[in-house]
Amino acid sequence: MIGTDGTAAIDLNADLGEGFGNWRMGDDAALLDVVTSANVACGFHAGDPVTMRRTCRLAAERGVSVGAHVGYRDLAGFGRRFVDVAPEELAADVLYQLGALDACARAAGTCVRYVKPHGALYNTLVHHEEQAAAVVDAVREFDPALPVLGLPGAVWLRLAAEAGLPVRHEAFADRAYTPEGTLVSRREPNAVLHDPALIAERGLTLATRGEVVAVDGSVVRLRADSICVHGDTPGAVEAARALRAGLERAGVRPRAFAA
Amino acid sequence: MIGTDGTAAIDLNADLGEGFGNWRMGDDAALLDVVTSANVACGFHAGDPVTMRRTCRLAAERGVSVGAHVGYRDLAGFGRRFVDVAPEELAADVLYQLGALDACARAAGTCVRYVKPHGALYNTLVHHEEQAAAVVDAVREFDPALPVLGLPGAVWLRLAAEAGLPVRHEAFADRAYTPEGTLVSRREPNAVLHDPALIAERGLTLATRGEVVAVDGSVVRLRADSICVHGDTPGAVEAARALRAGLERAGVRPRAFAA
Amino acid sequence: MIGTDGTAAIDLNADLGEGFGNWRMGDDAALLDVVTSANVACGFHAGDPVTMRRTCRLAAERGVSVGAHVGYRDLAGFGRRFVDVAPEELAADVLYQLGALDACARAAGTCVRYVKPHGALYNTLVHHEEQAAAVVDAVREFDPALPVLGLPGAVWLRLAAEAGLPVRHEAFADRAYTPEGTLVSRREPNAVLHDPALIAERGLTLATRGEVVAVDGSVVRLRADSICVHGDTPGAVEAARALRAGLERAGVRPRAFAA
Amino acid sequence: MIGTDGTAAIDLNADLGEGFGNWRMGDDAALLDVVTSANVACGFHAGDPVTMRRTCRLAAERGVSVGAHVGYRDLAGFGRRFVDVAPEELAADVLYQLGALDACARAAGTCVRYVKPHGALYNTLVHHEEQAAAVVDAVREFDPALPVLGLPGAVWLRLAAEAGLPVRHEAFADRAYTPEGTLVSRREPNAVLHDPALIAERGLTLATRGEVVAVDGSVVRLRADSICVHGDTPGAVEAARALRAGLERAGVRPRAFAA
Repeated sequence: MIGTDGTAAIDLNADLGEGFGNWRMGDDAALLDVVTSANVACGFHAGDPVTMRRTCRLAAERGVSVGAHVGYRDLAGFGRRFVDVAPEELAADVLYQLGALDACARAAGTCVRYVKPHGALYNTLVHHEEQAAAVVDAVREFDPALPVLGLPGAVWLRLAAEAGLPVRHEAFADRAYTPEGTLVSRREPNAVLHDPALIAERGLTLATRGEVVAVDGSVVRLRADSICVHGDTPGAVEAARALRAGLERAGVRPRAFAA
Repeated sequence: MIGTDGTAAIDLNADLGEGFGNWRMGDDAALLDVVTSANVACGFHAGDPVTMRRTCRLAAERGVSVGAHVGYRDLAGFGRRFVDVAPEELAADVLYQLGALDACARAAGTCVRYVKPHGALYNTLVHHEEQAAAVVDAVREFDPALPVLGLPGAVWLRLAAEAGLPVRHEAFADRAYTPEGTLVSRREPNAVLHDPALIAERGLTLATRGEVVAVDGSVVRLRADSICVHGDTPGAVEAARALRAGLERAGVRPRAFAA
Repeated sequence: MIGTDGTAAIDLNADLGEGFGNWRMGDDAALLDVVTSANVACGFHAGDPVTMRRTCRLAAERGVSVGAHVGYRDLAGFGRRFVDVAPEELAADVLYQLGALDACARAAGTCVRYVKPHGALYNTLVHHEEQAAAVVDAVREFDPALPVLGLPGAVWLRLAAEAGLPVRHEAFADRAYTPEGTLVSRREPNAVLHDPALIAERGLTLATRGEVVAVDGSVVRLRADSICVHGDTPGAVEAARALRAGLERAGVRPRAFAA
Repeated sequence: MIGTDGTAAIDLNADLGEGFGNWRMGDDAALLDVVTSANVACGFHAGDPVTMRRTCRLAAERGVSVGAHVGYRDLAGFGRRFVDVAPEELAADVLYQLGALDACARAAGTCVRYVKPHGALYNTLVHHEEQAAAVVDAVREFDPALPVLGLPGAVWLRLAAEAGLPVRHEAFADRAYTPEGTLVSRREPNAVLHDPALIAERGLTLATRGEVVAVDGSVVRLRADSICVHGDTPGAVEAARALRAGLERAGVRPRAFAA
């Protein structure tokens, strides 16, 4: 995307702070040198308060924007299992997580700058009207100017836009796309790409032309305010680094969409 | 205590929002008509997000100040068991609870106006220097002007004062006092008073003269910014009502110490 | 149903031990004098270990059979929210709950004598093949001779029967039935009956003739090994008592289906 | 120790199954090839039901004895924080964990063969009479013939012996000892040894002569039925392997103390 100052820029986001208590997950230190936006777990699917504070502090030190990675209350399932929670309960759960993370962020000299749902909630909000409306309500109650980040076409982003929340879209450089611009299910072979060079190239095309090559070879137009990168495998971190390096070489500046 | 406007006034505080999920506890509706300050559970020892939001809304509607009733992370023990948590962890846990409740309070049109520790944390902070310092750090990081409420003589209130936090003291109209001005242990017989008329009389003496009659008959001077009332038994609610009625008849206005 | 000794008998079951920590729910003492089978919560949706032990002890003292009331891991939702848990995880969760309750029951001189799913799991197992198979696997691994209790027609009972588990069916004297013999949804008016005399009469007809009058007036045949009673309201306990008294007056002996 | 068959043998135990949900900890696969007894987390400080079942299955396949590694209910603190839990509650918590793990073990064709407390509970039971008595009560109620494993001199082992439970003692090949035979605190430098060769040598001396060289150079006699090894660092696994290899070269057979 072309920034208001005429230079090309793109946000890079990743999930961070996904440990809990004595348990660690992912290579936060490595990712924080790659991304411009950190989706920080808020304690419901991962992320104890100590981890949240530390992650916010590290992000703030690097100028990385803190986003609230809100999820279902499900530590045992890491927020990856759909929970048929009533709208009133989901709205309260999200509001609670937003406030908790914001306190940690403010103690680190920053604040929550956007919201991105995690795991099963992320997937559910693509189509589930009631839960989508509940999350939008919670975000608006917390801060009616807080940007939300999600998948193009998601129901919850439509509702967020109708509610006046700034809507940002993300794309994936390491995921295969259908000709319709949706993600190929992880159950399909080749749904996830692993080649760092290919991922870097696709990321650059997303950032500069807003396009991605679908599984049938067709070119799909995708609006991407942010590219999501992963750090859960050594290869993923390497690919994220390659993606960033490729963007910088091409003159595309990694820049947080909300700062 | 005599207010700045020359009229006598006193705060009345009680623990509220102590349900969790499907479980209820106490008579919140009754207490909210008696008190001027609500110590609202923040999810660690009690209080799910739906309950927190509802309690904040009810408090806001009645002009009752919302305080953060922070506790150990111990739902199974209702926060009544000492946990030897490291200072860094306790500080993060308190900061997290403050932020979570504040988000609920702000959605209800108010905000967290003071902090009061719950249960075993309340008792521990009377003497435990490290945990006391951790809680003070957390409150100061959240808001360096946020009042703290506790027992006269508690270590954590001394540290809070040194850190510049406004310190408020509470007294108990339904508890027996030693000649030294400390509470008689609940393990002693007669540690807790049940007669509504006697409780009302003691509350009035606390509010107007800052005095309480100790178990040996001596008169102890006690600074009380707030009187703590209880609602966990039908008799307790009745006593709280009698206390408030007695104050009002004597021209002492129930007024939140932080509003 | 007519017992092997020629006398009429029926089981009465109720949910018990549904407190958690400091929170209480239901009138266990009253229900234990009415029922012959106690569905005891196992810690995942309700029921801390102290409550579980106490409930097993009280049941054992009264000769009431202990059943495992297994549920989703969801204290905040009281197990009433569907969780899309993978079969392997659900099987392990159920096995864990069975073992935990059995240890409590054995310490009380008895043991787990049957299994009945709780809440959202109960409803899900009526139709969800994968979760149904997982629960059946868990029960069989725990004890291939352990009876299972559920709704006639439920998928999980069919799978349980195929797996060789003894299958028992329950009916509801306080719920309206469709002409097809299924329960009228709680969302419909009149889905739940409240008149103790009517509930007692329907219970007697269920126990002696295996019949219930549906909402359209037709008579539906229902095999009932057990009648489920409730204790979550004062009226419910009264109705349960009336039901038992009616059965006894008619010569139908309340008797556990598994003892 | 010299076995009843005249050959030298010693047990090797390690903590296993310490993941939770999506989080992993330690190298279980490597340790299971080294030890003869597996202390398996039971869900209160670590160990979800899926992990418990898998760990039991892997242990059973290798002929490794399953022990219940019971802990405080404290996932966020990994059971490493003292909790001032009442005896009745602790006893119920331990009984619950024993039953839950036993069900997982039995589904794997084995059963719980001993009990070893974890973390802060391990340390507390060395001196805390009330909590010690509670744990002994729970073990006895679960199985009055179940062996308990702990530190020589611990209060809870004295009470266990008085209650008729088989008592087994463990020693540490990678920890420094005082001349009195107690462990040097981890806060001291050199409290933990890291040199695999030295650890192997100390383990062999413990196994064959029941002796260890203390920090002042004196020789301390220690009864060791089992040597505790660790797997939380790559070096620890290497040291554990060296210890086992050294024992086997010297003709000391690694053998579970309870099988």
